Amino acid sequence: MTTPSLLILPGDGIGPEVMAEVRRIIDWFGARRGLTFDITEDLVGGAAYDAHGVPLADATMARAQQADAVLLGAVGGPQYDTLDFSLKPERGLLRLRKEMDLFANLRPAQCFDALADFSSLKRDVVAGLDIMIVRELTSGVYFGQPRGIVEEGGQRVGINTQRYTEAEIDRVARAAFELARKRNGKVCSMEKANVMESGILWRDVVQAVHDADYPDIDLSHMYADAGGMQLCRWPKQFDVILTDNLFGDLLSDVAAMLTGSLGMLPSASLGAPMENGRPKAMYEPVHGSAPDIAGQGKANPCACVLSFAMALRYSFDQGAEASRLEKAVEKVLAEGVRTVDLMQSEGESPTSTQGMGDAILAAL
Amino acid sequence: MTTPSLLILPGDGIGPEVMAEVRRIIDWFGARRGLTFDITEDLVGGAAYDAHGVPLADATMARAQQADAVLLGAVGGPQYDTLDFSLKPERGLLRLRKEMDLFANLRPAQCFDALADFSSLKRDVVAGLDIMIVRELTSGVYFGQPRGIVEEGGQRVGINTQRYTEAEIDRVARAAFELARKRNGKVCSMEKANVMESGILWRDVVQAVHDADYPDIDLSHMYADAGGMQLCRWPKQFDVILTDNLFGDLLSDVAAMLTGSLGMLPSASLGAPMENGRPKAMYEPVHGSAPDIAGQGKANPCACVLSFAMALRYSFDQGAEASRLEKAVEKVLAEGVRTVDLMQSEGESPTSTQGMGDAILAAL
Ligand SMILES: CC(C)[C@H](C(=O)O)[C@@H](O)C(=O)O
Ligand SMILES: CC(C)[C@H](C(=O)O)[C@@H](O)C(=O)O
Repeated sequence: MTTPSLLILPGDGIGPEVMAEVRRIIDWFGARRGLTFDITEDLVGGAAYDAHGVPLADATMARAQQADAVLLGAVGGPQYDTLDFSLKPERGLLRLRKEMDLFANLRPAQCFDALADFSSLKRDVVAGLDIMIVRELTSGVYFGQPRGIVEEGGQRVGINTQRYTEAEIDRVARAAFELARKRNGKVCSMEKANVMESGILWRDVVQAVHDADYPDIDLSHMYADAGGMQLCRWPKQFDVILTDNLFGDLLSDVAAMLTGSLGMLPSASLGAPMENGRPKAMYEPVHGSAPDIAGQGKANPCACVLSFAMALRYSFDQGAEASRLEKAVEKVLAEGVRTVDLMQSEGESPTSTQGMGDAILAAL
Repeated sequence: MTTPSLLILPGDGIGPEVMAEVRRIIDWFGARRGLTFDITEDLVGGAAYDAHGVPLADATMARAQQADAVLLGAVGGPQYDTLDFSLKPERGLLRLRKEMDLFANLRPAQCFDALADFSSLKRDVVAGLDIMIVRELTSGVYFGQPRGIVEEGGQRVGINTQRYTEAEIDRVARAAFELARKRNGKVCSMEKANVMESGILWRDVVQAVHDADYPDIDLSHMYADAGGMQLCRWPKQFDVILTDNLFGDLLSDVAAMLTGSLGMLPSASLGAPMENGRPKAMYEPVHGSAPDIAGQGKANPCACVLSFAMALRYSFDQGAEASRLEKAVEKVLAEGVRTVDLMQSEGESPTSTQGMGDAILAAL
């Protein structure tokens, strides 16, 4: 078997520094567990724009298509705010998602025991929380045509199109049902079928896939606004939440915030299987590029480390090694190691990005 | 001056029973404060469908157009779930919003002191919370064309269109800035300008209206997903939140849930001034029709009562009388009067819908 390839795109802001810690952890898995990867590093987002004038070079896109998995840090920064829409750092990320056809975005919202007090929600509402949001990532209003700002009767009109085909809904629904089978067997699908026809089709197709091939799963449907409410009220009622690209963007951010520790949350974006059987895949932390603290060694590398753990599980079939890494992170938290974002009072002294990396390596 | 007219649409589920309490309160204002209204009652939602085969009869629509204010209870129920999209109870509500052109939906998210412990959020995060969401209500993806489910290449495709004109953004932005002037002078506008061109136009127009006519207001912009996060993390950072129809639907529900007492929250939907200077207006509680408890005298009438208070303030220029009513509700809560939805432990004995009405009347 050939060595699996990993394309690393550190990106902007705190991306490079958190990714540096992940590199050390990847090295550890190579030296100690015999898991080696053929690693290439490249640019995305503002970093790519600075070097090539575009947020993702064609050569990088080609490399991503070939890679067994892509690991991305974060994109964006205030210096790129005035760029044209088509050149903004985000477009690099969106191009990767679209061209690799990464239709299933897995966003676990998990509350770490040691951090339950961090949440703005009451401890009993979030302690032990473990839900998985499956967000459709390659269609909907993010990519639908027509779109743009046009002139009409002397004024500008902003237009975007929400568009979902049956096949697009079908495949992401299957991804959610498959995941639920390995979890607690429950899927709640969210849309606005009371207002949007695309939501009616969504509900219809999800129900049909369920009835045909996943009758064992406990499927429910909820309007997305009520879903947002219920996430805030009693998130533990959910197991897997299935939703579209735009609702998923909002609801997964709300769910992430519930856990109280955004700096801890990874994500996986999966596509169809490649020839070698592995899914096309990109892994990235849920947090952004945090330009305000970039380059100061303050960033929490855990979300990026846990994104690599998801890569071990979903791309490389190394579930046991993934758990090993996840347990190491939990242990470090339980021991009280804290980056700045995880501190509750001024009195504590925070550890650095590298210090957190050291601690995770020691725990491994 | 002629007696102002009020069209009352109790609707479905708990709508009629909460509205019955409001009627008693309106009577009190007539008898004790000399505020009389020319009241007509009519049907909306499932109740209208049952009587006329449509969720809003043309005659009712015409009455709403003539009324100085409309007071609506709630619409919907499981028996209407299988109706065609165009006949569902919600369409009655959406038709009223659209044809009356009620573009500014005001949704206060206020945490009542006596109820702060009800929230799933920690007390210090929500106690004293008082924010106002201004949601655009007559455009966006709710009404944009083209829409529907079409056949394409042998499969169904669901389509909706997000569409905003400059004028539509301009007028709702002004409504938000005007409100902020009477509050704490801050507006945070939310969209997804990093992904949607309609969001770029939204941000652009809001900023231009600000710079031209409201430079005294502290305006900020936030992506809607980050907005959802921030609402959960530290909602008190906001004063007025300005957003579009779909984001407003989600974000206002999240904000409402933060307060921990959905049964308490009113809303106002305002349009352009009529000939008599009053804005076209409809007032309704944020909660739904709650079919599971309908007809049992368990419903909390406060949200509907407070919606009438908003009518006093925004339609009838009776700010002092509105405050009188709001204070009466607060007093009743402080005294510990609780409908079922406001009870924290099994031990307490709840008051009925009518009991709550009695208590408010006594406090007045
Ligand atoms: C950065 C942005 C384009 C992106 C999105 O809207 O999808 C982000 O918010 C996310 O959730 O990954
Ligand atoms: C009932 C439904 C059509 C409505 C909406 O989506 O606007 C409701 O959720 C609301 O927020 O008033």
